[in-house]
Amino acid sequence: MTTQVIILNGGSSSGKSGIVRCLQAELPNPWLAFGVDSFVDSMPAKMRASDAGIEIAADGRVSVGADFRALEAAWVEGIVAMARAGARVIVDDVFLGGAASQQRWQKALGGLSVLWVGVRCESAVAAGREVARGDRVQGMAASQADVVHQGVTYDLEVDTAHAESLACARTIAARVN
Amino acid sequence: MTTQVIILNGGSSSGKSGIVRCLQAELPNPWLAFGVDSFVDSMPAKMRASDAGIEIAADGRVSVGADFRALEAAWVEGIVAMARAGARVIVDDVFLGGAASQQRWQKALGGLSVLWVGVRCESAVAAGREVARGDRVQGMAASQADVVHQGVTYDLEVDTAHAESLACARTIAARVN
Amino acid sequence: MTTQVIILNGGSSSGKSGIVRCLQAELPNPWLAFGVDSFVDSMPAKMRASDAGIEIAADGRVSVGADFRALEAAWVEGIVAMARAGARVIVDDVFLGGAASQQRWQKALGGLSVLWVGVRCESAVAAGREVARGDRVQGMAASQADVVHQGVTYDLEVDTAHAESLACARTIAARVN
Amino acid sequence: MTTQVIILNGGSSSGKSGIVRCLQAELPNPWLAFGVDSFVDSMPAKMRASDAGIEIAADGRVSVGADFRALEAAWVEGIVAMARAGARVIVDDVFLGGAASQQRWQKALGGLSVLWVGVRCESAVAAGREVARGDRVQGMAASQADVVHQGVTYDLEVDTAHAESLACARTIAARVN
Repeated sequence: MTTQVIILNGGSSSGKSGIVRCLQAELPNPWLAFGVDSFVDSMPAKMRASDAGIEIAADGRVSVGADFRALEAAWVEGIVAMARAGARVIVDDVFLGGAASQQRWQKALGGLSVLWVGVRCESAVAAGREVARGDRVQGMAASQADVVHQGVTYDLEVDTAHAESLACARTIAARVN
Repeated sequence: MTTQVIILNGGSSSGKSGIVRCLQAELPNPWLAFGVDSFVDSMPAKMRASDAGIEIAADGRVSVGADFRALEAAWVEGIVAMARAGARVIVDDVFLGGAASQQRWQKALGGLSVLWVGVRCESAVAAGREVARGDRVQGMAASQADVVHQGVTYDLEVDTAHAESLACARTIAARVN
Repeated sequence: MTTQVIILNGGSSSGKSGIVRCLQAELPNPWLAFGVDSFVDSMPAKMRASDAGIEIAADGRVSVGADFRALEAAWVEGIVAMARAGARVIVDDVFLGGAASQQRWQKALGGLSVLWVGVRCESAVAAGREVARGDRVQGMAASQADVVHQGVTYDLEVDTAHAESLACARTIAARVN
Repeated sequence: MTTQVIILNGGSSSGKSGIVRCLQAELPNPWLAFGVDSFVDSMPAKMRASDAGIEIAADGRVSVGADFRALEAAWVEGIVAMARAGARVIVDDVFLGGAASQQRWQKALGGLSVLWVGVRCESAVAAGREVARGDRVQGMAASQADVVHQGVTYDLEVDTAHAESLACARTIAARVN
């Protein structure tokens, strides 16, 4: 069955975006890429520092409120609709709720053919890359590295602490039908 | 009837993005914002300089190919699905095809309640702002300023050559139900 | 006497950057552009939220500490040295200290030929443009609009609330020898 | 003797910027960071695609002209002047001219205490990271990986293909007096 959606899940600074760009370069057909970062960018600026929206604490912990969840649910429906309409879609997300986050996607995805990819990066390495990026609140990477994978099931996993983005992308691309 | 989607159409450097950010700040409810720029960012980099994707000539003229059109159609379906799922959505687009571009949106939007907004900016002013931005190919603004409005019908029009972004946003917000 | 340095002073969101890019496009010779934003970007990330570095309060007020002042003084020396070495240089700055800020530049500039430009933008207009930019703490524009000009003397002033960036740049360019 | 300037030399996508940000985070004193990317950003947009300025060919090869060289010489003088004025300065550069590029810096640096660092990354790895970045012309990394080190002498070298940015930064920081 032809793969219609690729979903990458991993913590902040685990290397998802680099893999996505390599996947778009390597895969012969054009794939659209969306992710939690572009979703947050689509929200009003005032929601990026509010109880009802999304807040990033000084220690890097992220909390989201009711408005965020409601808009996110509609955004997920929209991304899935793009795939149903024929676009090949890559999504990178951070499953802050672990298995519950995956179930939200699964429910929306219905019968679509999905490749689930876990993007692993050990906490200390991700925390170091967070320093190197320079544009993230310190602590996000460490706080998310493990919890986002709890209870989540994958078709394959890649580990960016031990393989380059391009190599990870090629491993994933080999599983795309 | 409650407004579900706001669509802003205007040429490059006509000031759409600034109005969108002001609308998100002014409107009491949270609105998601998407646009042709974020759509192009979601495409593979290799499509940004290809016949089948999108090409920007040295004189600023933009041409799009078959792959672009196919992915755009799916993207439009997805944006509309977000609105159907309950998200309030602002879209900023550049109707390179004028009335034909509007008809593509209208067909996808079905019975949703839409506010159509024309963002005008006289060609010479937009061309000057293109220089001030510094990140656009010179000529895009002038080549698009008029053609994107040909045959398009609006609920209201704003003119950024004669009003600030925030004032334009307030004019639009007053028409949102 | 040939103009060697152009210094633009104005509050946040008064439109300095757009004028600088237009000046670089309009002036026949190549001019390098530096400013307080690129200076802040050159500092360690940890100085951007520290007593000794630079802090932006929730109401947009900016305060700078001893480390910031020491590095800034060295940065000013360096910018002036580029001009002495033959580069034409445009600087955009925010004179938080008004006349005292200008005196610091004057002392470093020595006998160089400088064109001093005040970039005015009435507080309410700048505050609206701050909303339209979407990436600034609300309140910076209003808190800086007037104080940065107190006691400062100029060769000419431009007003971005009543003229486009390109027009302001042409007014300035006409005064460059 | 107290280290006053740290100069990192390496090809495009070799990982210089990440090391710089880690150095700024790790070093106890505040260090300013400048580099060839910020220098190019300070030039007029029109010089970024001109014979006299800087051109990037479709295969990623970079060529620079007379205006670029003249402005670069003045910029180097300015960076050195910042260090003389007391700022600790980190520079990341791409020695397109190999030993000749180093000699230009050495001549300007005079008696300052400099730590010379080579940032190595094997060509294939850098080319892969160029794909992952998505914002560079493909081919720059491969065309620069080796030539920028020809004839250049270093106090130490780091290899980002085999060590994380933070680890490289710590190796360098241990050599800063």
